[in-house]
Amino acid sequence: MSTSLDAATVDLLGVLAYGELTAFERLATDARLAPTIADKHALASMAAAEFEHYRCLYEHLRGAGVDPEAAMAPFVGAVDGFHDLTPPNDWLEGLIKAYVGDGLAADFYREVAAFVPDGAARELVLETLADTGQATFAVARVREATSRDPAVAGRLALWARRLVGEALIQAQRVAVERDALTELLVGGSGDLAGIARLLSRLTDNHTARMQALGLQAS
Amino acid sequence: MSTSLDAATVDLLGVLAYGELTAFERLATDARLAPTIADKHALASMAAAEFEHYRCLYEHLRGAGVDPEAAMAPFVGAVDGFHDLTPPNDWLEGLIKAYVGDGLAADFYREVAAFVPDGAARELVLETLADTGQATFAVARVREATSRDPAVAGRLALWARRLVGEALIQAQRVAVERDALTELLVGGSGDLAGIARLLSRLTDNHTARMQALGLQAS
Repeated sequence: MSTSLDAATVDLLGVLAYGELTAFERLATDARLAPTIADKHALASMAAAEFEHYRCLYEHLRGAGVDPEAAMAPFVGAVDGFHDLTPPNDWLEGLIKAYVGDGLAADFYREVAAFVPDGAARELVLETLADTGQATFAVARVREATSRDPAVAGRLALWARRLVGEALIQAQRVAVERDALTELLVGGSGDLAGIARLLSRLTDNHTARMQALGLQAS
Repeated sequence: MSTSLDAATVDLLGVLAYGELTAFERLATDARLAPTIADKHALASMAAAEFEHYRCLYEHLRGAGVDPEAAMAPFVGAVDGFHDLTPPNDWLEGLIKAYVGDGLAADFYREVAAFVPDGAARELVLETLADTGQATFAVARVREATSRDPAVAGRLALWARRLVGEALIQAQRVAVERDALTELLVGGSGDLAGIARLLSRLTDNHTARMQALGLQAS
């Protein structure tokens, strides 16, 4: 197939599509851990919204003459690796993963999207990163749990730290393997100082999410 | 809340809604076992379609002044019991469960729906029972697998028999606990001979599905 999209944009849409597909699977799987039908309903609704994001990315790639499965394939190892190493042990860990993990990933993709030359692709990425309701829901449920049992907060803070660590390992793996995507990010940032500022923005947002949850960020 | 729906119809919509919600979770979970991205895409798409069915039932109950969670609650034990006792061990067992298990359930609900007095509720039930693509997909994948390795067919036939056995146990549990629903079915069937004919129709359809898969029905 011939396409108007550059290699870095195809990579970005591909990793994002596979990320949304697995986020869908994971949220739907975690819905099984939900303590009430109302919680199950909430998580299943978010999962369905993630699937809709996935479908938009999939169709955009096809419409641009790109095989969506080929675009996703290079990222299966890193994304599956992250999920295989971070299975939530209970309902609360699942919520933290949905909010903290997906929040960090979304911030990162948003930064990369700013450098995408194709306007339609850039818009699409920003739309698919829209919060599907995880934030409010996770914050409310986690705060309820830690106010009932303050000891839970320590365990959840450690869990969030582990999620960030595993995510960074997989992100490095992608950076090493996908030159075009890495160049887009490095070229867009300008220099090492630009990358440092980007990392500092990601860290600030992560800290804000942890504070919203009432958990220690570090 | 006051509602125009009779108790049996609320029960039917409730059990069906909870069934679709768990079918969604299960299909999305089984998508993790998919051997290729294309298979994962197919299963996730079916799961999203089940969620849409669930959403329609949920909204219909709300629209009729019924609390959807209260309508689903009496069936959580039986539906979760069925799934807890029949976790698929691999991708093929998941496909058999999606096709044979959901097929049997859909046939049964369709029979009950025929006796529902409310026309809009009857229509909705029939719409939400529409096949979301499981049939063609499962038949193709299972036939590929058994033609590569004929020994697999025996194991899958046993698995299908177990699914039917567990489903009957949970159906009896519901029949004992939900008088209105049971009366709708018994009253609608007319007499014991009517029930016998209904069971014989269910058995015939089950046998046809097993034949489509190329598996022994008994």
